[in-house]
Amino acid sequence: MEFEALSSSELSAYLRGVPAVYALLDEPGELDIEEVGDGNLNFVYFASNARAPEKSVVVKQAPPFLRLVGKSWPLTRHRMEREVAALRRFGALCPQHVPRVYHADSDLFLMVMQRLSSHRILRQGLMDGVVYPKLAAHLSTYLAHTLFYGSDLFLAPDVKKQAVRDAVNSELCKVTEDLVFTYPFEDHPSNDYSPAFPRAEIGRLRQSPALRIAVAEMKWAFMNDAETLLHGDLHTGSIMVNQNDTYVIDPEFAFYGPMGFDIGAVLANLLLAYFSRDWHDRVHNAGAVRYRDWLLDQVTSIWGGFEQTFLKLWRDHESRRKSHFMGDDPGGVCAEAYRARFMQRLLAQSLGFAGCKMIRRIVGMAKVADITSIADNASRAAIEVRALRCAERLLVERNAIGNIAQVVSMARALQADGHVSP
Amino acid sequence: MEFEALSSSELSAYLRGVPAVYALLDEPGELDIEEVGDGNLNFVYFASNARAPEKSVVVKQAPPFLRLVGKSWPLTRHRMEREVAALRRFGALCPQHVPRVYHADSDLFLMVMQRLSSHRILRQGLMDGVVYPKLAAHLSTYLAHTLFYGSDLFLAPDVKKQAVRDAVNSELCKVTEDLVFTYPFEDHPSNDYSPAFPRAEIGRLRQSPALRIAVAEMKWAFMNDAETLLHGDLHTGSIMVNQNDTYVIDPEFAFYGPMGFDIGAVLANLLLAYFSRDWHDRVHNAGAVRYRDWLLDQVTSIWGGFEQTFLKLWRDHESRRKSHFMGDDPGGVCAEAYRARFMQRLLAQSLGFAGCKMIRRIVGMAKVADITSIADNASRAAIEVRALRCAERLLVERNAIGNIAQVVSMARALQADGHVSP
Repeated sequence: MEFEALSSSELSAYLRGVPAVYALLDEPGELDIEEVGDGNLNFVYFASNARAPEKSVVVKQAPPFLRLVGKSWPLTRHRMEREVAALRRFGALCPQHVPRVYHADSDLFLMVMQRLSSHRILRQGLMDGVVYPKLAAHLSTYLAHTLFYGSDLFLAPDVKKQAVRDAVNSELCKVTEDLVFTYPFEDHPSNDYSPAFPRAEIGRLRQSPALRIAVAEMKWAFMNDAETLLHGDLHTGSIMVNQNDTYVIDPEFAFYGPMGFDIGAVLANLLLAYFSRDWHDRVHNAGAVRYRDWLLDQVTSIWGGFEQTFLKLWRDHESRRKSHFMGDDPGGVCAEAYRARFMQRLLAQSLGFAGCKMIRRIVGMAKVADITSIADNASRAAIEVRALRCAERLLVERNAIGNIAQVVSMARALQADGHVSP
Repeated sequence: MEFEALSSSELSAYLRGVPAVYALLDEPGELDIEEVGDGNLNFVYFASNARAPEKSVVVKQAPPFLRLVGKSWPLTRHRMEREVAALRRFGALCPQHVPRVYHADSDLFLMVMQRLSSHRILRQGLMDGVVYPKLAAHLSTYLAHTLFYGSDLFLAPDVKKQAVRDAVNSELCKVTEDLVFTYPFEDHPSNDYSPAFPRAEIGRLRQSPALRIAVAEMKWAFMNDAETLLHGDLHTGSIMVNQNDTYVIDPEFAFYGPMGFDIGAVLANLLLAYFSRDWHDRVHNAGAVRYRDWLLDQVTSIWGGFEQTFLKLWRDHESRRKSHFMGDDPGGVCAEAYRARFMQRLLAQSLGFAGCKMIRRIVGMAKVADITSIADNASRAAIEVRALRCAERLLVERNAIGNIAQVVSMARALQADGHVSP
């Protein structure tokens, strides 16, 4: 049967028939339904009590295709089950940063979840130059908790292996394998270059052995390293914020993968936001330099806060359990040295994934508004080239980069060098 | 119900009731049953037609415990299903090196397979100083085919992810996680040190941060890197040989793991055989130096042959498919550079696993006859220390070792240095 999006009246009738939702919306006689999806994957609605609009929920339904492309790109509706399972799992680990799921329907591939009405998409806030003072602390907490508790550092080996099985998400992973790790480096019809984007850059991307090797290594890690339950698509459009709260939404890409993939997604999107300031500062004008600095500070503090919290969770857990992942180590010297090595490797992996994520947003199919909103073609191309250079260095030099400060210095240097030439 | 091993008459009656087996054994009136298991995990029998002993099969049954330890170490009987599935899969990929499965019974956790009556366990052959001229070519072929065809380099991503799910083998993996990667580095009751083994070595193993880090990294890779369907226990006791044939048996530890784990197991056991020549050459005397050289030649040719065959499978597949794992690369320069990097990383990974495998055989619970058969305690300890030093260097220096020749030189140098002192 051909998929048809639910009409407002159908959805309204459906929601009023779900007792938990009906109660939550204060037993509405009538519901206002508004379609609000950004259109990449799913249909998303706000459903509010017409008489008490503050009583409101979000409804999300997965059609059997990639909405961004349409029916020509079929996609399993079971992604909704992955998303519900991931929201519940992450919500259990980090309730303050994950919206609540009120209801899930595995026949309609639909769920009803908490409405974040006083929050906005982080990407929009960053484009507007808004400072979120708690963002770094919140995101580093979210990352540390979700990545640690899903891994072999915490879970019993059999529980973890079962979790890996349960989280297999082939079709959504395939989207990433293609759109992030493969098509951007090919002469592929889905690629999309901005009007003034220098053609020489395209050749560079496709023909540099060092870059292509690094990207292939990240693709291999993405496909093989089942380290923890990832969000899988943690860009700044999957984060909702206000001055007090930070929520991570939309984990339909969740699967067991390499920890650095989520961290890299956050860092990549902050770096894209940073380079795009060259344009947005012209529009928003005031405080320009300081806001750029704030963005780079987020890069530093999110990694730093993540590292600190992750290590604390790890040390506390092993101290309670009186044993280490590596086995007994009475002095603790070896265990601590391994932790340091682990974090070093994780930083390198995160930077590699950040590089891939930045590249796909510049030359691949799915763009980011930070860059597509740049009205001046020449400015946009210059920003794109600078971001590409940064991405390439993150990928190729990832194992030599010793700390996050070097990443920030590199970004600053690329930004300062007005003549990054094709 | 308490497990009872089948009596000869029960097994005989059972086998005569399986039509395929009954026919294969030439419709025997009576069967001779002989228990031949080495006793580590399972019960193993030869069942032969009493009137035509050349009509014979192997029967293998998994009891609900680790036979080496006894009922105090329970172990899932479903390992037999893993073994049957792996034998069938590897048999399809490499029929000339994998015994045929004639019958599998998932109620009794029992299977009937090809009897290799003119073959012996490779480890015994190596202890006796027998040269097997086709061994390296056969093992490198087996490794290349099984490791390549289970991986993302060949399989479609969704097929591979399903294969990962199907091959989850938590309990058997736990045995490896504990006995290979953890207990040998702890003050653990299952460890077993030979009488003259220098106590200072034990401290070294437990307290060297560089070594403990390297082992923890290998443990992490073992638990996380779902690269291909592995044999999972590919020591020289899992290989049966004669002058013409090589068969790989006993894949009950099969799971999706890092490619280097199987390669490392082979290399580790050849290196243990090499160092143990100091004793066995005294017994077998003639051709001593040449046999040592032959053992090291096997290290070189198995890796070299594996690399060559694996790369050929990879290149041929991508050439047929007209695309690369990394995506299109019209000139092929980047794809070839990635292949070289991939093999370099795989060598390092294999050497790390080889180091872990060698260490567990010296200080851990399950030993190898190459070493336990050494009657002189001082000789045994000297050999053990030399092998340990080699293992430690393989682990710690694995990323700096550029080629297999360096491994051979290192082993030779350690052997030549009579005064490897505790």
